[in-house]
Amino acid sequence: MPEPRELPTADAVVIGAGPVGLFQVFQLGLQGIRAHVVDALAHAGGQCAELYADKPIYDLPGVPRCTGSELVALLLRQTAPFAPRWQFGSLVQALQPQPDGQLLLGCSDGTQLHARQVFIAAGLGAFVPKRLPLPGLERFEGRQIFYANAIPAPAASAGLRVVVHGGEESAVAQAVALAERRPSATGAPASVTLLHRREVFQAPPDLLARLQQLRDAGLLQVLTGQITGFQTTAAEGVEKGVDTADARLSALELLTPAGHTKRLPLDQLQALLGISPRLGPIADWGLALERKQLRVDPATMATSVPGIYAVGDINSYPGKRKLLVCGFHEATLAAWAAAEARAGQPLPLQYTTTSPRLQERLGVRESLE
Amino acid sequence: MPEPRELPTADAVVIGAGPVGLFQVFQLGLQGIRAHVVDALAHAGGQCAELYADKPIYDLPGVPRCTGSELVALLLRQTAPFAPRWQFGSLVQALQPQPDGQLLLGCSDGTQLHARQVFIAAGLGAFVPKRLPLPGLERFEGRQIFYANAIPAPAASAGLRVVVHGGEESAVAQAVALAERRPSATGAPASVTLLHRREVFQAPPDLLARLQQLRDAGLLQVLTGQITGFQTTAAEGVEKGVDTADARLSALELLTPAGHTKRLPLDQLQALLGISPRLGPIADWGLALERKQLRVDPATMATSVPGIYAVGDINSYPGKRKLLVCGFHEATLAAWAAAEARAGQPLPLQYTTTSPRLQERLGVRESLE
Repeated sequence: MPEPRELPTADAVVIGAGPVGLFQVFQLGLQGIRAHVVDALAHAGGQCAELYADKPIYDLPGVPRCTGSELVALLLRQTAPFAPRWQFGSLVQALQPQPDGQLLLGCSDGTQLHARQVFIAAGLGAFVPKRLPLPGLERFEGRQIFYANAIPAPAASAGLRVVVHGGEESAVAQAVALAERRPSATGAPASVTLLHRREVFQAPPDLLARLQQLRDAGLLQVLTGQITGFQTTAAEGVEKGVDTADARLSALELLTPAGHTKRLPLDQLQALLGISPRLGPIADWGLALERKQLRVDPATMATSVPGIYAVGDINSYPGKRKLLVCGFHEATLAAWAAAEARAGQPLPLQYTTTSPRLQERLGVRESLE
Repeated sequence: MPEPRELPTADAVVIGAGPVGLFQVFQLGLQGIRAHVVDALAHAGGQCAELYADKPIYDLPGVPRCTGSELVALLLRQTAPFAPRWQFGSLVQALQPQPDGQLLLGCSDGTQLHARQVFIAAGLGAFVPKRLPLPGLERFEGRQIFYANAIPAPAASAGLRVVVHGGEESAVAQAVALAERRPSATGAPASVTLLHRREVFQAPPDLLARLQQLRDAGLLQVLTGQITGFQTTAAEGVEKGVDTADARLSALELLTPAGHTKRLPLDQLQALLGISPRLGPIADWGLALERKQLRVDPATMATSVPGIYAVGDINSYPGKRKLLVCGFHEATLAAWAAAEARAGQPLPLQYTTTSPRLQERLGVRESLE
C-alpha cells in the first residue's frame, strides 16, 4: 500500500454529488461554508445521472418538467458561486472521529482528508460497477479484467484477444468500437468477442446493424453463455516456476444455453455489466442504522456521531419519504444546524430575496428598494 | 345576516393560495385528491404576489433565479392538471369538526363548506388591508369608506368630495387617476384630496410629476395630517330625526404636523394604507399553538385536531425554518399522511419519473422504456 496522500483540511465534506449532495453544497455556501465533495462516479449527478439522465421529473416545486441531467446542470449552476472542491472517482472508505474533534476520511484513491463536518448524501450508496461473482477473479482486476468504471483506452487492447462481456448498449458499443479498429488500425486487438448470457442485446437499431455487419465480415464473434469458471497460467501448469501471484488469466469456462461447457481463451476481459448503488463501507462507520438507513434527528439531520449529518435517500426519521423535495429540505436543515453548531448559538433566518449578505455570497447584485 | 350559502362538499380544502398552498394542491393531486382552495386575496400567490412579485428568489433547488410572480405562475401550471376549485377574496373565519367526522368551514363571503381534510397553508395569516384604527368608523365601510381590497370603480365617486388616504404608490396613483378624470369626464368627482401624514410620497418620478401638474392646475389638493377623529351627520345634529345608524360620515378631524387641528369635509374616503398579513381567526379554531404558530407532528404535519394539517410559515415543529423549500417538503408529507389516513394503511412510494399512474394524473404521456 502506498502512503496515503493528505489533502488540505476541509471545512465541510459532502459525500455524494447527487442532487441532494449538490443542494447541500449550495445551502452550505449560503451559510458561508465551503464544501469538498467526494463521489464514486467520475461526474456529478448520482442517480439522476445514472438512472434518470433522460427521464422526466415532474414533482419539483417550480419546475413543471425536467430530466435528471437537466436537474443536475441546474444544481451545478447553483453551486458554482460557492466554488466547491470536487473529488470524483473516489469512494470514501473510512470515516473516523479524531481526538481533536475533527473527522478523518480515507478514500479509495489513496487520499486522506480531515474535515470539521461531514454531510453524507450518498443516496442508495456509491454507484459501483457490477463485478463478476467468481472468487479469485479480483486479482486480475486492473491488469486483465476491467469493469465499467475503468475501461482502458483502445490502445491497451493492441494485439490482444479481447472479450467484452455484457448485453446492454455500453457493452455492444464497446465491442463494436474495438472490432471496427480492425484490421486497418495499428494497435487493433487480435480478436474481439462479445459475450452475453443470451443472444439478445439492448441497443439502438443502428448499433445492432453495425454489430451484424462486423459479424458477417468475421471481425467480431458473438458468444452466448454464462461464465462458470476460469483458468490461469499457473493452474494449467503451462508456465512452471511462475509464482501463483504472477499467474495470468488464460481462459473463461462457459456454460452455453444448450447446456454445453466451453472454453474461451482470452488476454483481456472488459465486463460492462452495469453500474449499481451499494451502501458499501458506510455501514461500518459506527453510525446508528435503521433498516440500512442512517438514523437522524429530523430537526438537524445529525447522525448519532457529532459533526456527521445525513441527508437524502440514505437517512431515516419518522415520516421519511425518499423524494427529492424532502432531500432538499433536509440539506437545508443540515446546513442551518451545522452553521449554528459552529456559531454556538441560533442564527437569524435570512432570505436570498432580501439579504445583501446572501446575495454577495451568491455573487448577484440586485437593485433592491 | 343572510343565510350561509352551502358549497358542495370538498375532498380537501387548502386554506391559502401562496406557493406552499399551491404545492399542497399539486401533491394532493398526485395522491388523487382534488382540492378546493380558499384565499383572502383576489388571486393566487400570497406573500410571493404581495411582497415579492418582482423580487428575485435564489434558493429554490433547480431554479437558479425566479421572481415571486414567476414562481406563482410555475406552480399554477403544476396544479392545472388537478383542476382545483378556487374561492378567492374570501377569508375562512370558522373551522369546526362535526360529529360525522367532517370539518365545517365558514367563510367571510357567506359561504359554508364541508371538507374531509383541511390543509392550512395560511403563511403569516390572511393578507388584509390595514384599516383606520378609529372605533366607530367600521360602520361606514363599504358605503363611504373603502380599503385596498375593495376600492370602488371611478363612477362610484361621481360628484363626490373624495379623500384618498395614503403615502405609497397605490394611493398616489388612485388620487391621480381620479383627479385626471376632471373636469372633462362625466361622472368625475367633485373634488380630490390626497391625505397623508407627511408630505413625502413613495412613488415613481413620473407619477409624482403628474401629481404636481394636477396640484398646479388646482385639480388635486394635497393635505398633510393625521386623522384623529371624524364627524357624522347625526352627531352634528344637521339632519334631525335621522336614526344614528343611518348617519353619514361628513368630515374627518385632522392634526397637522404643525400641531393645528383641521376639519376636512368629505363624501367618500379611500384608504390605501397597504395590505398586511394577520393570523386572524385561525387563533380561535382550537388548534394547539406555539408562539402564534400551529404546532404540528413533523412526520405528518397533522395539527392537534384530526383531519387538519398545517404547512408552511404558519406551522411549528422542532427545527422549523420558514423557508419555501421546507414548506414544499411539508406539503409533500401532509399529502402522503392524508392519503394514508384515507387508505387506512401505508402507501408505497411512487415516482413521477416512472409511475404510469402518476403520469396519467399529471396528464403526461412519456415513452418510457
